[in-house]
Formats: sequence, structure tokens, C-alpha cells
Amino acid sequence: MRFSMRPSGRKLDQMRSVSIEPNVMKHAEGSCLIRMGETHVLCSASIEDKPPPFLKNTGLGWVTAEYGMLPRATTSRNRREAAAGKQSGRTQEIQRLIGRALRAGVDRSALGERQIVIDCDVLQADGGTRCASITGGWVALRLAVNKLLKAGIIVSDPIVDHVAAVSCGIYAGQPVLDLDYAEDSTAGTDGNFVLTGRSRMIEVQMSAEGASFSRDEMGQLLDLAEAGIAELVAAQKAALG
Amino acid sequence: MRFSMRPSGRKLDQMRSVSIEPNVMKHAEGSCLIRMGETHVLCSASIEDKPPPFLKNTGLGWVTAEYGMLPRATTSRNRREAAAGKQSGRTQEIQRLIGRALRAGVDRSALGERQIVIDCDVLQADGGTRCASITGGWVALRLAVNKLLKAGIIVSDPIVDHVAAVSCGIYAGQPVLDLDYAEDSTAGTDGNFVLTGRSRMIEVQMSAEGASFSRDEMGQLLDLAEAGIAELVAAQKAALG
Amino acid sequence: MRFSMRPSGRKLDQMRSVSIEPNVMKHAEGSCLIRMGETHVLCSASIEDKPPPFLKNTGLGWVTAEYGMLPRATTSRNRREAAAGKQSGRTQEIQRLIGRALRAGVDRSALGERQIVIDCDVLQADGGTRCASITGGWVALRLAVNKLLKAGIIVSDPIVDHVAAVSCGIYAGQPVLDLDYAEDSTAGTDGNFVLTGRSRMIEVQMSAEGASFSRDEMGQLLDLAEAGIAELVAAQKAALG
Amino acid sequence: MRFSMRPSGRKLDQMRSVSIEPNVMKHAEGSCLIRMGETHVLCSASIEDKPPPFLKNTGLGWVTAEYGMLPRATTSRNRREAAAGKQSGRTQEIQRLIGRALRAGVDRSALGERQIVIDCDVLQADGGTRCASITGGWVALRLAVNKLLKAGIIVSDPIVDHVAAVSCGIYAGQPVLDLDYAEDSTAGTDGNFVLTGRSRMIEVQMSAEGASFSRDEMGQLLDLAEAGIAELVAAQKAALG
Amino acid sequence: MRFSMRPSGRKLDQMRSVSIEPNVMKHAEGSCLIRMGETHVLCSASIEDKPPPFLKNTGLGWVTAEYGMLPRATTSRNRREAAAGKQSGRTQEIQRLIGRALRAGVDRSALGERQIVIDCDVLQADGGTRCASITGGWVALRLAVNKLLKAGIIVSDPIVDHVAAVSCGIYAGQPVLDLDYAEDSTAGTDGNFVLTGRSRMIEVQMSAEGASFSRDEMGQLLDLAEAGIAELVAAQKAALG
Amino acid sequence: MRFSMRPSGRKLDQMRSVSIEPNVMKHAEGSCLIRMGETHVLCSASIEDKPPPFLKNTGLGWVTAEYGMLPRATTSRNRREAAAGKQSGRTQEIQRLIGRALRAGVDRSALGERQIVIDCDVLQADGGTRCASITGGWVALRLAVNKLLKAGIIVSDPIVDHVAAVSCGIYAGQPVLDLDYAEDSTAGTDGNFVLTGRSRMIEVQMSAEGASFSRDEMGQLLDLAEAGIAELVAAQKAALG
Repeated sequence: MRFSMRPSGRKLDQMRSVSIEPNVMKHAEGSCLIRMGETHVLCSASIEDKPPPFLKNTGLGWVTAEYGMLPRATTSRNRREAAAGKQSGRTQEIQRLIGRALRAGVDRSALGERQIVIDCDVLQADGGTRCASITGGWVALRLAVNKLLKAGIIVSDPIVDHVAAVSCGIYAGQPVLDLDYAEDSTAGTDGNFVLTGRSRMIEVQMSAEGASFSRDEMGQLLDLAEAGIAELVAAQKAALG
Repeated sequence: MRFSMRPSGRKLDQMRSVSIEPNVMKHAEGSCLIRMGETHVLCSASIEDKPPPFLKNTGLGWVTAEYGMLPRATTSRNRREAAAGKQSGRTQEIQRLIGRALRAGVDRSALGERQIVIDCDVLQADGGTRCASITGGWVALRLAVNKLLKAGIIVSDPIVDHVAAVSCGIYAGQPVLDLDYAEDSTAGTDGNFVLTGRSRMIEVQMSAEGASFSRDEMGQLLDLAEAGIAELVAAQKAALG
Repeated sequence: MRFSMRPSGRKLDQMRSVSIEPNVMKHAEGSCLIRMGETHVLCSASIEDKPPPFLKNTGLGWVTAEYGMLPRATTSRNRREAAAGKQSGRTQEIQRLIGRALRAGVDRSALGERQIVIDCDVLQADGGTRCASITGGWVALRLAVNKLLKAGIIVSDPIVDHVAAVSCGIYAGQPVLDLDYAEDSTAGTDGNFVLTGRSRMIEVQMSAEGASFSRDEMGQLLDLAEAGIAELVAAQKAALG
Repeated sequence: MRFSMRPSGRKLDQMRSVSIEPNVMKHAEGSCLIRMGETHVLCSASIEDKPPPFLKNTGLGWVTAEYGMLPRATTSRNRREAAAGKQSGRTQEIQRLIGRALRAGVDRSALGERQIVIDCDVLQADGGTRCASITGGWVALRLAVNKLLKAGIIVSDPIVDHVAAVSCGIYAGQPVLDLDYAEDSTAGTDGNFVLTGRSRMIEVQMSAEGASFSRDEMGQLLDLAEAGIAELVAAQKAALG
Repeated sequence: MRFSMRPSGRKLDQMRSVSIEPNVMKHAEGSCLIRMGETHVLCSASIEDKPPPFLKNTGLGWVTAEYGMLPRATTSRNRREAAAGKQSGRTQEIQRLIGRALRAGVDRSALGERQIVIDCDVLQADGGTRCASITGGWVALRLAVNKLLKAGIIVSDPIVDHVAAVSCGIYAGQPVLDLDYAEDSTAGTDGNFVLTGRSRMIEVQMSAEGASFSRDEMGQLLDLAEAGIAELVAAQKAALG
Repeated sequence: MRFSMRPSGRKLDQMRSVSIEPNVMKHAEGSCLIRMGETHVLCSASIEDKPPPFLKNTGLGWVTAEYGMLPRATTSRNRREAAAGKQSGRTQEIQRLIGRALRAGVDRSALGERQIVIDCDVLQADGGTRCASITGGWVALRLAVNKLLKAGIIVSDPIVDHVAAVSCGIYAGQPVLDLDYAEDSTAGTDGNFVLTGRSRMIEVQMSAEGASFSRDEMGQLLDLAEAGIAELVAAQKAALG
């Protein structure tokens, strides 16, 4: 693969440096601080004894997620959603994606009738916050589930596989891995890829504003994503020790 | 392709019957009623003389969309969003998708500093409402732009190509085209594909709850989608006469 | 009665053409599309097994209504109430009127502890939407109650009489029947009249902005309304076959 | 007219004692406390230099109203609307009526491009609060307009006539004037009548829940209302000195 | 203490005239109208049979408060909070203070599992509305509790002591008692002091915008407050007879 | 001062360990992470070129604050305010306090017509979050103002003095400094003290639920607060280097 003039100087297929610091929140059942370059997301997992009402008496559990961003996580200050009185469409779209992605890696009947809420709060944003939230959220989830297993509250592990996510896109005509904000804001096409530890796909979202894309380009982005996800899964494993 | 036991008796690669009735709303600059089987969506395009504030003095126009569903469009009655006091996350996600998809087929500088609002209201739902909204919304948009051209308000056609959408999924282990509600609610994987008249991709959203999917399956769904979109584009052309 | 220069060329006591198409919604227990000239309202009735909380253990049922208007039902686009985050005062006033009017024609103890929700959604507006909603809403209600009777869920018919509504007003100094938008927006006095099949009054709302009115004028409008309602009741009967 | 067993012992055509105390609020341009028996409403008029946006550059003024009720104005405490986060449909319906009624007695071009806001706050409720609000609101309006005239800000009096309102209904089979809560809550039919000082009608709202009514009954209620309004107009005159 | 040029001509340590009129609301279990000069607050106490959910099965009761201000209680009209759709931060802060202050004078186990809601509605404002609300709210509370005692619903008096409040501040460099609006809006430091009948402190809130204050000044304000509270407690006793 | 059995084993007059890490947020004009024991608050300062509307053309600037808490900052998860659709009364009270406190240390005319928004987001809570927000918020403000000075946008330093805050209370009958959550939740009286670098008072808030307090106790808490603030001001200086 050729070198390219990415704003960060990274190679086309080069991830930002990844760091996942586990157990950073005193009260949460599971937590981590994930850093993808300058994107920092604090993830926590909270176990609730009861499932959501629609699962009562089904024997099934639930995993859901909420997403937020500190007002000054971004270049210029964004209005605080709590002050605005509602979550934006973007926020809702992202937290629905995180929840769906994490649930896809869980055997909800092994989890039993309880709910785990994953909170992903972006402390600093430089592109790719939804992907970082999924990758870090999975570590928080894993740690919380470990507590349930250790305490004997559940006996069989409901977590089926790793879940991690990365964005790829066509930047300046080239397929690139792990877009940062400078790339994301000008990319013709960008996509978010959620994969399992075994490289199975959970969610693919590709979108073009202005420039449409071909199946070939789609394939190239998928190739990049598979490589990136392998790196993220390794980072998850390292963080869990 | 083999026959399959789809609930509707359709072949795996068979669309529902499509009908697009143009100019059904007296007041709107463009409108149509699109029927994909039992899914019926009323689409209108409203031209506004001013662009949204963030485009002032840029020379660029905007296309946006809003989506709604009548309370009894569905099997059991849903709470009216206006009464609930907010649009659900699902609604916001869908209308963001419709707007993004239609904008991708428009040359915003040829449109000039004005906004076209596409309203997609589901009168009856049987799966695939977001795809029908995009396909029908494009017809409403086309009709409204025709008025602008005819009146000489704009001189060069801002519409670059057709935009249409269809859903595909893995139902009972088989890739199927144009999911209806019975299929959609039980499909392991489902995806929404937005393509142009030239089969270029604008948006791909594939999602698995429970069962992950492979690149092969992804390819099969794309094959189905391309065939389906060709049929929808033909229906758009027929409706426009 | 003399001829008049109504914008539509109608006689003073001439209704717009009325059409009521029953059973137009696949999922609803009762439904119709009512057209009063260019005013089109889709009405559905949804049966809920439980009454509202304040009627629990009273043996009484409830009929209520919700009203909405598609954003582009009107000459220029109105903001979607779901997006605005609340129903306007006008919407609330109208839906309270529809519910009150339909309840007045129902024996709530024969209905038993259940609720029927009437949704009236204006697809196209040209004046008189609240009256069309009542007239069409009654047909939807009638059809839904028929289902309850046919299924043996209730044994005695809770519907006491037809309920229908029409607007009349003083336009250009003349009392006229069934105002359309061109008349409604300039009428000195206008009124909404809800009557039963036996010409008993359920609701009378007369209002003057600027020009007050006399008892004589009130009487003339009532005369017109009685004639108009008779026509609407006939149309309801025809629609029900 | 025969005597009747009204809960209060009043005759059928007997109003409650009426008292209107003007200028009770230090800051308002006009104000009064109106008492209709045990119904007490504090009314104020606030002059704003600018008309609402839709009247800019039309030369016309506006009169509007807001209505509220203290949480413990009623037998049992009602939730505070400010805490609930919205005004109920009932509140909105009432304040729209008050505004419409008062505007009908005003020459908006003589008022000029300004707005007068009438606030009607129910301190204690015993039926008939919307009618008391109109009658008292008119006194507040009159006092505020007097200030404008005295200061020479406007030169010709925009107030065309008195506006007052009273409720009548069919209680225990008899037409009665000025319903109190005990009557209002059980009356088969009740109506609100807004008339001018010259007995011209501005607004008539009659409504039946359960029992429909005839034209004869409507006439009897109108007779009662005309007599009641004459008394209220006299009270307005007395209060203004 | 020296004389001073207070806008009202009052001495530095002189309260405004205080008047507390009990039992002014027909429906409330306890009520009063308190007047501190031109500040008028209507206070009611409503007894609810059930405590708030978090106290269920604890044997403890609750006292809470809500605060409101009529739109034209002030020099220029304020937007109605019910119309704005939310209570301002100021309103919430004040009602939390009132509730906390009154609860501090109550033995919640003697009150038992019930709730008393104190509503304080400012009819006219001239500074010091939160203090007047506490002083008047206590009288309403006392009257409501008397009813519970008289009816034998509770046997031991849950009210431990009087609770009253007054504001003091540094105005034009001098410590003054009971600020009115003219003083409050320009005072460098102002404080609200909630004390019991035995001069014990319940709440002290001192605040400086611009000019900080010393411990000496704090002591002087406390001296003033103690004297003022004694007067208010006497007024409470007089009102209760 | 005697030793005491504080849950943490601290002496009565012993602060928790304080750490202030400056410049932790890439995008903000000023920022720090303040840790008071297990209470961690991320503070940022955002400079806006325009003042709030009410200060336009006054030559004065503004400092305001917003406060938030991550859902799992606490022992059990709290509902996200953005999802709930509003900020709680507690949140509003706290952010109003922070803003007022920081403004009191600023010469608003030296700041000029601009606004600085301080965001205080609690990552982990163990009591005293509002005090930590003020102390850390001042450091963020100082850093942002330094940037304005360095860039020559303002020429004279608008910051008059340090501002810091600490809580004290009566715990188990003893006056203690810097309450942690275990103490705060059971203290009879607790207070928040905002002081300047010269030990002048800006805000004092003392509150008793159940147990009232005396002037002597108030004095003891003030003594503790003065000592604590001196330590915090030293930490602020150290952080700024």
C-alpha cells in the first residue's frame, strides 16, 4: 500500500495509537477510558437487577447504551444537551448503534433478566467517537459481566465474542483507515464497521454526501476495517490482562 | 435462484408490487403516493425561498426530510409523536437518512440558495417504510424541481441522478429482496441500500441482531438490491411519464 | 334562497361534494377517508381493551380523539407538531371537540370498560377539517363498534345515533353553508354545528372576530346546518352500505 | 319563572353576587379582581410597545390573553402547569377564547401597532372561571386603554363596546343562569355566552355530554344569558366609576 | 443605629409593615395572604394522604413547596412559566429553599406517612418574595396541621417551632433589614436568613456580586435578621390568634 | 482541635488530598481536572466573542457556568439529564452558584464584551462537587483569561482575586472540614463557603435539615472554611506554576 499525505502523516492503513485503561471509575461495575489518538471516551457499565419492562418474564436480558459529549470536547463549544432539553438526532442515532452493536455480541438468555447500561461520554473528540464508544463499551461490558460471573450471579458467560468498531473512508480519493476529524469532515464517503473477534460483521454503515461509491471501493474499505478491528481486539485483550 | 417459503409466497428476489401515483397533493410543489405492497407513504416536496441559516451567502441550497407515521399505520396503535412531545430516536434516524440520501443526488450549487423539504408520512406500514420514503421522496423532489426549472427560477437541473432505496435481508437463512413486516421482524440480518440510477451506492446500512454476517452474504444482498433498485427506478420513470 | 357569488360558485345553501370511503386502513378496527371537496381526512378507530385510568371499575367506556395535519396539507408548509415538540392550542381544541362530540352519541355503559381512540389526520385542507373529522370519525367509530358486536364482545349497541358536523358562517353579508378555506378566512362570523341523526344539537360553537352577530343570524345559520347535517348523515349511511 | 332547588338556593335566573375591584395590582397598566360568588379571578392588562411579529407594518394592534389557575384554587390540588411543563388543552382553549372575545370588542387599527396582554389568574374556582375572566379581563383592558388615551399615545378610543360573558345550562332539567361548580359538574348541557354591551353576540359555545339539546332549549339559555350579561355590564360600569 | 437614606425612608433596622391574613382560600386545608409592604404572597397548604414514593413504609412524612409568580406581579411583565414550558432555575432554587426551610421545623415522624404541599404564589412583587413565602407558608402549614390534630388524624404535634425568614443586605455601604426591590437590585451583598422562633438558624444564604464581604458584616446582618425574625414570629402568632 | 472518628479517618480540620491538573483538554481555552479525594471534576473555559444579549453595548463581559454529572459518577446510576429532557433543580441551583461565585472575582468591564462559559462535569462524585467545580472552574477561567491577555485581546487583567470553595458541616456533633459523601449524607448542618484569595467572603450557604444551628457553630465552620480555602488557593497557585 502506498504512502499518502494524510493530515496526520499516517499511512493509509495506519490506525491512531490506541490505549484502553480499565477500571477508571470507582463506582461502576465495569469501566474504561479509551483513547484513539486525540479521541477520548469514558465508558461505564452499570448492572440493573431488572430488565426493561418489555422483557419481564421472558428470561432474557438486555444491553443498552447512552452516549454524550462534554460541551467542550470539540473545537468550538457545543450546547449542552441537558440544557437544550433534548438529545439531538445524532446522539440518538449513535447510542442506538452502540446498544445494537453490543447486544449482537451477547447471549441474552445467558445474561438472564437483568439490564446492563453502557454509558459512553466523550471527554475529547477528534473523529470516530461512535467507534471508540463501541470498542471501549465492550471492555466495560466485559468487566461488568466478569463481576456477575465471579459472584456466581450468572453461571454461563453471556458474552459470545469481542465486538469492536472502526471507521474507514475515501479521503482525497484514497481509502484510509480510522479517520480523524480532519479527514472525516472532508471525506467523500465514510463508513463505520462493527466486527466481532472472528471478523464476522455486525453492522456496516456506509454513507456518501455528494460522491457516490462503487462496490470495489466498498470492498477496499472492508479490507481496511478487518485489519483495524484485529488491532482493536488485541488492545481489548491487553487491557483485560 | 430457488423458490422459498416467504410468508407472502414471493420468490427470494421478487419485489412487492410497486405503484407511484404523482401529484396527489393539491398544495405541494411536488408529491406522490408510493405503495410498496401494503406499505403506503405520502410524500411531498415544499420549496422554501431561503436556505437554512448555515448556508446563507454560500450560494448552496439544501434538501432535508421529515418522517412521520400515522398512529394507526401499524398493527397496534402507536402513540402520536406530537402528543408524546418528541420524535423518537427511530424517527430522527430515518428522517436523517432520507435527507442525506436525497441530498446525495442533488447538485446543491445548481439548486441555489433555497431549501426543499421532503415530508414522508406513512399512511400504512408493512415494512420498508424508510426505503419507500426515499424512493417516493425522490419523485416529489423531481416534480418540485421541475416547477423551478419551468418557471425559470433555476436554469440548470440540480438533480444529478435518480435515487431509490430497497431493503434486503437474510430471512430463514436465505437472502431475500424487499422485506415486508413479517420478514423484517424476524430476519437475522437486514440492510437498507440506497443507490442511484446508475447503480452507484449512496448509503448502505447492514445490521445484525444476534446473528452476525459474512462478506459473502453482504455480496448476495447487494446483488439483490441492485436488481430491486433498477425496478424502482423504472417505476419512478413511469410515474413521471 | 338567492344565488350568491361564493368563490366556488356554490349556492348559499350548497354543500361541497361529500365522499366517504370506508375501510381504507388495513390495520384499524374501523376507518374511512372522508372528502368534503378538497378537504381530505383519514379517520381511524382503534379499540383498546382497557379504559383510561379514571374509569377503572366504573363499568363505563370512553371514546377519545386525536387530530393532526400533515405539514403540507395546507397552502404553505406548517411546522410538524412532532418536531415542534408539542401540539398547538388549535390542535388540542379541535381534538377535544371531536372526542366530546363523538362521546355524546355513545352509551358508555353499553360500551363497557374499553376505550376507542379516533385518529383524524388531515391529508389535505381546504376549510372545515374539524367538521369533516367528526363526520368521518363517526363512521370509523361505527365500523369498529360493529366489529365488537359481531364478535360478541359487547351485546347491546352503544351507538345511540349518528353524529355529524358542518360549518356555516356569514360570508360577504350572507349566511352560507359548509365554508371552504377562501370563505372561512374572511367570514365575519363562523360556526361549527354538531348534530345527531335526529337533528338534536350536541355542540354549537359560533364566533365573531370583529363583527358581532344577532339572534336572527344565529337562527339562519342553524337552519343551514340542519339541512347540511341531513346530507352528511345520508352520506354516512351510504358509506356503511 | 319558577323557583328551583339549585344547590345554592338561587332562583333559576339569579346570578351570583358580582364584585369587581379595579386597580388592585401596583405594576399593571390595568387590573381588577373579579368575584362571581366564590369564583375569584385576578385580571391584569400589560401594554407592550410592539405588536406580535405577524402584525408588523400593518398598522394594527393585538389583544391576547393568558389564563392560569393556582394549584389550590380547586377542591383538591391540581398539578402546577409550570411544573408539568405545559399548559393543558383546557387552559389553551380557555385563553384562546378570552383573547378572541376581547379582540372582538376592539378596533385594532385605532389601537395601533402595540399589544395588550390580558392575564387572568384564578385564585379560587367555583365554576365559570372563563366567563369571569372575560368580564374582568375587559375591565383591565379598559383601564389600560384609558392610560394610553390619557397619555395621548393613542387619540381615538379603540374600545368599541363592553364585552362580558356568562354561562348558562340545563341543570336538573331546568335552564339556569350562571352555573356554579356544583351545577356545572352535573349539567346535561352547558354554554358560555359572550355578548357586547348592546346584546350583540360575540361567541356562543354550547355543549352536551350525553344529553343533546333542542333549539328551544338553546333559545331559553340565550334569554337567560342576555339578562345576565346586562347585569355584568352594569357591574363593569360601576367598577369603572 | 443611625438613620439612613433608604429609598423608602425606613430606618436601617426597620421592617416593612407586615400583615398576615389567615384562611383566605376556601378549599385549602391552610392558607394565608402575607403582605410585606408591597410584596404580596398567597400561601396554601394541601394535605395529601400519601407520602412521596421514596418515603413509603418509612413512617415518615414530607413537606414540600412550589413557588410561582403571576406574570404581572413585577414592574414589567414576565413570561408565564407554564407557557414557557418550564420553571426557571430561579423558581426551582426558591421552591427548594422554601421546602427545606419548612421541613426543618417539622418532626416528620410525628407527621406520619403523608405529604403537605405548600404553594406560594406571588401576586405582587417588591423584593423579598422568597422570605415572605417561607413566613407565610409556615402559617398555612400550621393551619393545615391544626386540622389534622383537631380531626384526630395525628395525635402529637409535628411542628417543632416557628419558621420565618427575612432578607438583609449591605445597601449603599450600610447594613439594612428587609430589602425592598429598589434596595435588592443594587445591594452589593444580600442574604436570606431563615430562623426558628427560638432564634436558631435553619438556613443562611449570603451572596456577593462584585463586592465581597467580611465576617464583621456577616455578623451585623445576622443581628438585623434576628431582630426582624422576632417581629415576623410575632406577626405569625397574631395571625393565628 | 481534637481527633475524631471521621469515616475516612481524617482529622476534623483535615482536607482530602487536592490535585489540580491544568490544560487537560485539547480544544478548550482553559481547562483542568480537579481531584478532591475521590471527587473528580473536569473543568473547561470557553471564550465566546459576544456577550449575552442583555449586555450588548454596555462594555461589560459575562462569566457563566454549566454543571453536569456523568450518569455513573455516583454509587448507583443516575438518569442522564439530556435523556430526561431537563436539568434538575439541583443542577440548576449548582450552576447558578458556580457562575455567581466566579463572576464575583472578575472585573467585568476589564473583560469587555465577551463571555466565558465554564463547564464543570463531574466524572466521579464523593461529596463536595459544587465546591470542587468552583475551585477548578477558577483555574480554567484563569488559564483562558491568560490567553486573552497574551494575545493582546484584553490589556488589563479582569481577574481580581482567586476564588475557591469548600464545604464544612456538623458531623456527629463535631464541626468538620471538606465533607465527603459519607459525611455529607448524614450531617445535621452543612455549608458551602466561597472565599477569595484574601479570605473575603463571596457566598455562604448554610443549611440544616432537622437540626438547627447556632451562631457559635456558624463561626466554627467559618474558621474551618478559611483554613481550607487557604490550602485550595495554594493548590490553584501550584497548578498554574
